[in-house]
Amino acid sequence: MKIDGVLYRTIWPSDDGASVVIVDQTRLPHRFETVTLGTLEEAAHAIRVMQVRGAPLIGVTAAYGLALALVRDASDAALAQAIELLAGQRPTAINLRWALEEMRSVLQPQPPGDRACRAFAKAAEMADEDVETCRRIGGHGLKLIEEIAKTKPAGEPVNILTHCNAGWLACVDWGTATSPIYHAHDAGIPVHVWVDETRPRNQGAALTAFELGAHGVPHTLIVDNAGGHLMQHGKVDLCIVGTDRVAANGDVANKIGTYLKALAAHDTGVPFYVALPYSTIDWTLSSGRDIPIEERGADEVLVMQGRTADGTVAEVEIAAPGSPAANPAFDVTPARLVTGLITERGIALASREGLAALYPERRESAA
Amino acid sequence: MKIDGVLYRTIWPSDDGASVVIVDQTRLPHRFETVTLGTLEEAAHAIRVMQVRGAPLIGVTAAYGLALALVRDASDAALAQAIELLAGQRPTAINLRWALEEMRSVLQPQPPGDRACRAFAKAAEMADEDVETCRRIGGHGLKLIEEIAKTKPAGEPVNILTHCNAGWLACVDWGTATSPIYHAHDAGIPVHVWVDETRPRNQGAALTAFELGAHGVPHTLIVDNAGGHLMQHGKVDLCIVGTDRVAANGDVANKIGTYLKALAAHDTGVPFYVALPYSTIDWTLSSGRDIPIEERGADEVLVMQGRTADGTVAEVEIAAPGSPAANPAFDVTPARLVTGLITERGIALASREGLAALYPERRESAA
Repeated sequence: MKIDGVLYRTIWPSDDGASVVIVDQTRLPHRFETVTLGTLEEAAHAIRVMQVRGAPLIGVTAAYGLALALVRDASDAALAQAIELLAGQRPTAINLRWALEEMRSVLQPQPPGDRACRAFAKAAEMADEDVETCRRIGGHGLKLIEEIAKTKPAGEPVNILTHCNAGWLACVDWGTATSPIYHAHDAGIPVHVWVDETRPRNQGAALTAFELGAHGVPHTLIVDNAGGHLMQHGKVDLCIVGTDRVAANGDVANKIGTYLKALAAHDTGVPFYVALPYSTIDWTLSSGRDIPIEERGADEVLVMQGRTADGTVAEVEIAAPGSPAANPAFDVTPARLVTGLITERGIALASREGLAALYPERRESAA
Repeated sequence: MKIDGVLYRTIWPSDDGASVVIVDQTRLPHRFETVTLGTLEEAAHAIRVMQVRGAPLIGVTAAYGLALALVRDASDAALAQAIELLAGQRPTAINLRWALEEMRSVLQPQPPGDRACRAFAKAAEMADEDVETCRRIGGHGLKLIEEIAKTKPAGEPVNILTHCNAGWLACVDWGTATSPIYHAHDAGIPVHVWVDETRPRNQGAALTAFELGAHGVPHTLIVDNAGGHLMQHGKVDLCIVGTDRVAANGDVANKIGTYLKALAAHDTGVPFYVALPYSTIDWTLSSGRDIPIEERGADEVLVMQGRTADGTVAEVEIAAPGSPAANPAFDVTPARLVTGLITERGIALASREGLAALYPERRESAA
């Protein structure tokens, strides 16, 4: 997507072919900076501290990280160790493990001398594939927005609420939850997005608002507390969120607070959709109860980053001194609260049967 | 309650008898500062900018503000104008209007020369009455906590979630939602409080965490998004929140986001109680749909106050530059999601019948 008129992806190989460049998402929205990752450790660090985040993007970053590792040592042991290191950086998003297993299946059979080169090529393929997958998700989701637009008075926007950032910054391009929105906006359908701030890391205020603004999509920032009230008052036509892992029964793990919005949507009759690529489905888990939930540091709750009056970026402590904080990063929304799953193959009911119908080749492992 | 071992109320007459002192809640938790209010305009300003906040406390502050007005001009016209000015500062909390009508009914029959003196005395009575009311709320709520404590293994705390600050800082002393908690803690029952941060003004992180910490009550700060997840995992035994206005049918207006927590409590089987004095019940409203919801400034969403590394208090802009924000300050929780209303007379079902049974003298006006 565009920033200041320039087309960007979130990750791309550098010109030297031996490193990879990312947009540093810990700096947004205050600074737009890129970082060059030259080693496995730098890639692992970028994932852990969330310079890159979003389930699809951390998968692609891990693939490149593995390629960087193999430049240094392409032995079987080094391959296994690098996969283990990268997989351990974030526990909830399944795409990370999916991408690494994809890489392993391609690289393991290769002679060590060919592995680094093959790894870079495969990582680039995965990045391209993510772009195409997200484009398709947008096409399917667009139809939902078109249907709602038909019921609106001329010129009145379709109001869409989203939580966290499942935008192009969470992927390589287009986004998952935002892809239908960009497709609708680009097709001339009036849309307006309610952007949940998404405490504690403020990915809505910092990333979703930033990318929607950069692309010219009308939007309004709200605190996470406000969405239920807006739904009660008919100000939300549709919710679309992303996900870090979908269990085989359609339960959805996503950024903490998603469950609360799904409850409000259910209570007020607002459709609640989850957008995802097939790599986010964990066919081995029979329900969302088994999805591991990452507990992150208390500082994310206690400390806030922002711009001071003189334009510098500063951190401030916001809470009562000495009060401890807990910080579970994800929650699980039961499938019963999800209207549908928007995938690259179409829209599935959030159920074992719905997913199996869309991915018949996985029916066996999902049983 | 105590701060650094010293007993405080949130508001008290100054020694000269011609002004009133408040704790400046816009400075907490970073600074503990008091402000002296000497005029009607200063009292109105304190309510508007939320140096004092919380439904019971703004009622008492308005009562003192009226007394300050009458020192300058005790005519009928001045009395009416001062009431109008004070009532207009915050639209949602009914206690503000209730307190002013109480004052009017006492002061209007007095000769103007006696009004100022009588007003100070009546404001002081209302402050004392608020303390006693909150103490009684605590006694009734304590029984709920005791019942849960009996079901817990020895030493394991009762986990209580609260939203915003309905603590002693929102009242004159004890608090509404916190009063049962303080009573349980003081009675030696182990309690632990999950404190919702309460964006956008962070009254949980800034005020509830501060006052629980100052009184020695174990607590953990969480973002507003986290409560549903904790309830799903059995980590919340009970929710208690305050309210700014209860309709005659038991619908509850409270800080934005309360509705989302009530939905999660209902979905997970966690009891959800609302604590309030009788002055918060609006017998003239047949349902919560008619409660006016205050829309506050976008800066509360876009700008965050905190302590920098060198200990100064600074404001930082946290969102993407140029993104607009909406800021509805309250939402309405339907009575069907409320387990019970904890009042100074006991615990009522959140329904027309429940309230009428507890306040039989109001049955007629509630019809």
